[in-house]
Amino acid sequence: MIKAVFPGSFDPVTLGHLDIIERAAKITDMIIVLVCENSVKQSLFTLGERAEHLRYLTNHLPNANVDILDGLAAEYARNHGARMIIRSLRCGGDFDYETQVAGAYKKLSPELETVYLSASPEYSYLSSTVVREFIKHGANIDEMVHNYIKIKLIEKQRGSVDHGS
Amino acid sequence: MIKAVFPGSFDPVTLGHLDIIERAAKITDMIIVLVCENSVKQSLFTLGERAEHLRYLTNHLPNANVDILDGLAAEYARNHGARMIIRSLRCGGDFDYETQVAGAYKKLSPELETVYLSASPEYSYLSSTVVREFIKHGANIDEMVHNYIKIKLIEKQRGSVDHGS
Amino acid sequence: MIKAVFPGSFDPVTLGHLDIIERAAKITDMIIVLVCENSVKQSLFTLGERAEHLRYLTNHLPNANVDILDGLAAEYARNHGARMIIRSLRCGGDFDYETQVAGAYKKLSPELETVYLSASPEYSYLSSTVVREFIKHGANIDEMVHNYIKIKLIEKQRGSVDHGS
Amino acid sequence: MIKAVFPGSFDPVTLGHLDIIERAAKITDMIIVLVCENSVKQSLFTLGERAEHLRYLTNHLPNANVDILDGLAAEYARNHGARMIIRSLRCGGDFDYETQVAGAYKKLSPELETVYLSASPEYSYLSSTVVREFIKHGANIDEMVHNYIKIKLIEKQRGSVDHGS
Amino acid sequence: MIKAVFPGSFDPVTLGHLDIIERAAKITDMIIVLVCENSVKQSLFTLGERAEHLRYLTNHLPNANVDILDGLAAEYARNHGARMIIRSLRCGGDFDYETQVAGAYKKLSPELETVYLSASPEYSYLSSTVVREFIKHGANIDEMVHNYIKIKLIEKQRGSVDHGS
Amino acid sequence: MIKAVFPGSFDPVTLGHLDIIERAAKITDMIIVLVCENSVKQSLFTLGERAEHLRYLTNHLPNANVDILDGLAAEYARNHGARMIIRSLRCGGDFDYETQVAGAYKKLSPELETVYLSASPEYSYLSSTVVREFIKHGANIDEMVHNYIKIKLIEKQRGSVDHGS
Repeated sequence: MIKAVFPGSFDPVTLGHLDIIERAAKITDMIIVLVCENSVKQSLFTLGERAEHLRYLTNHLPNANVDILDGLAAEYARNHGARMIIRSLRCGGDFDYETQVAGAYKKLSPELETVYLSASPEYSYLSSTVVREFIKHGANIDEMVHNYIKIKLIEKQRGSVDHGS
Repeated sequence: MIKAVFPGSFDPVTLGHLDIIERAAKITDMIIVLVCENSVKQSLFTLGERAEHLRYLTNHLPNANVDILDGLAAEYARNHGARMIIRSLRCGGDFDYETQVAGAYKKLSPELETVYLSASPEYSYLSSTVVREFIKHGANIDEMVHNYIKIKLIEKQRGSVDHGS
Repeated sequence: MIKAVFPGSFDPVTLGHLDIIERAAKITDMIIVLVCENSVKQSLFTLGERAEHLRYLTNHLPNANVDILDGLAAEYARNHGARMIIRSLRCGGDFDYETQVAGAYKKLSPELETVYLSASPEYSYLSSTVVREFIKHGANIDEMVHNYIKIKLIEKQRGSVDHGS
Repeated sequence: MIKAVFPGSFDPVTLGHLDIIERAAKITDMIIVLVCENSVKQSLFTLGERAEHLRYLTNHLPNANVDILDGLAAEYARNHGARMIIRSLRCGGDFDYETQVAGAYKKLSPELETVYLSASPEYSYLSSTVVREFIKHGANIDEMVHNYIKIKLIEKQRGSVDHGS
Repeated sequence: MIKAVFPGSFDPVTLGHLDIIERAAKITDMIIVLVCENSVKQSLFTLGERAEHLRYLTNHLPNANVDILDGLAAEYARNHGARMIIRSLRCGGDFDYETQVAGAYKKLSPELETVYLSASPEYSYLSSTVVREFIKHGANIDEMVHNYIKIKLIEKQRGSVDHGS
Repeated sequence: MIKAVFPGSFDPVTLGHLDIIERAAKITDMIIVLVCENSVKQSLFTLGERAEHLRYLTNHLPNANVDILDGLAAEYARNHGARMIIRSLRCGGDFDYETQVAGAYKKLSPELETVYLSASPEYSYLSSTVVREFIKHGANIDEMVHNYIKIKLIEKQRGSVDHGS
């Protein structure tokens, strides 16, 4: 069985992420989406909330699972019998960075392969950072995230206001 | 009338910025220089000071205006009837990043075009980050900024000392 | 009046070329599409045929003209009062090459600006080279070229067979 | 069953090619190595010879097959039930090119995925072009190709001399 | 005498750094390794500790020295009679950044040359950032740093715990 | 003694080449400029003519020599006791290519270092290819080549005409 992991911070999950997950599900027997801590300081959603969002949004994919990562993706993959790490590339500069991470992982788990998918052209501009920037300025994110995520964002903002009162 | 906006944080304005503004003024009927919040935490000059600097330094260009941005450049452009956003590229890596921002803007304002100018070779090394690094170490910035900016920097530093006393 | 030239070999004209021409027409008062010799040895269509194709396909754009280039684009621009050369970028590597050509042109005509537009995401994969490769293998090019070009290709192939007989 | 094709000209097969084939064999149920026409004019080995070399050198991989491509890799993949095209990347510039080819293939076969593997660091410098350049100057290619290929090269050169006499 | 400086933050010193220092020592008469402040907020080791580590690890190189930088590398080089700054490149994106720094330095010291060495393939994935990430997750760093650095890291962690008690 | 080679086809020698040779001469004890066969089919000047041009134009540099390469630059370097190959980079894409050549050379001569200099900003657009393109169209090359080369080009063209008559 060919098992893969797809690590990311998914804060929030974008349509670009869902596109990669669906494409990855077609070329593997099982794909585990791994939610990681953000590198940026302030997260929009907690790790648990993001995992919940991914579970809901990948529910139609019988061979997709969601888990929360505590440690390095390469170690998780090895411990869970996954042969592949899947990463998405939007441009050549992404590759230069990703190949360094992949090289480091190879030292931990020589049997592990990092494979890259190109972002689909219609999502090549899209990242969680762009979505957060648009949210900050109240701009329209309809073409960037699933409607479910928009609802969760509204709940979150209402929650913040309530907590603030 | 072909109207364009040129957004940036201009903290401080460099000779590279002025070169782009002058070149952009030649290929448009009106160019609006838009001062944005810095992405770095600590700014050197306030938004208002930077707008004042740009107004002084572009005073010789009849078709250049300066404004402060509150929101996304794409929305400003749409609301002010500008067809173009102008961005400067120093290298291929800049393009990879800029094209993602431009793609996101296109979703907000499909009619809006982002056009790129190459930094002139003599300024291809120059960024506000480099200038701030040079200032921090007291190094010579004569070939990096206009003399007017040097005076403003000295005033600012004297001001800090006065406030500190 | 802001006049621009858009040089290329257009052998054949793709939907990506037409997208750039339409977008360029919106940010200039006049755009001259300049048909140049191919750098590859064997052309599909003659310079005259390609100019004819472009004239047909840009007929709906009142401010677009088509001409055949004999010499350097920078000299043509200078001699015809154009302030801008427009080029399309698909990736950072394109920029690295284009900026060298632009730098050389700047030596000939210091007043001339080269401005870049990003290829639209849906055409970012598309080049005349890809189209020629697909034609060579008889693959479907419906999403790559205008139907008019497909008809011209069929006529051309029939012509070759007739000449061969 | 997850089936993939790995197209290339393999003129000659390098240790870098064999590394990718072995790694690809681990993440798929079947990998078909596809020998294509060279883009360069003069080939070293015929298509048939190269297929023979690949068959010999992948003989230890039970799930690897070799075939000769006549047409586009995307059409071959579709006609043979392969879900993936595998490509190797050495640097970000490779990605910029490959993603254009992949985008064109996606138009022919929307279900087909192009996945990328990084060249292993020890082979990141290695290409058939470099090997041909080294052969031309009689330089040592021991770390570049399998010993079997070295023997075939010697036979080929002896053959050329015989034919020449 | 051809003297060069090699600036970096070395937090911690990796096997990749040592490889560059050894290679640089062979193409210069004297190489000064310059320890700089980190750009990231929280350093692992103090400037003094890092200089001590570099002195220990370059002890076998008669023409290598270690110093701590206070200011800009270009000014240090000029004040100490060094003609060259040596920098390591892992990919094309590194070059785009480095050439901007080098251009700025050239303004301060027109006589100074920045020369680049490629990271050796086996260390092309390796950076202090990767090492810090691996340390944070308790992953194996045997192939990343010298054993001496591993001991220093253990001492440092024990120290933190003691201070914490 | 630190000896370096600087290989290139120099067809024709540009001001960018002379800039690199002068800068390389300052950071080495001896620099050998190596004239190689062009990769393009039709050369402008013969190998012998190009070596003569380089000898004339580097006559003021006491530690510069000129030779014609027959074979691989790495083998020449090893046979002539040179520790370094010097290459010029104009952009990140250049590096991606050059590092592959350097990696191959390292296999032949592990002791040999390839070091890179950035093209000076004012020559970053300049290549022999651009010069040949400008010559072909009769454009002004005053800022691209030394006056001596211009004279040689005129002699060459007059010669061609004479031969043609």
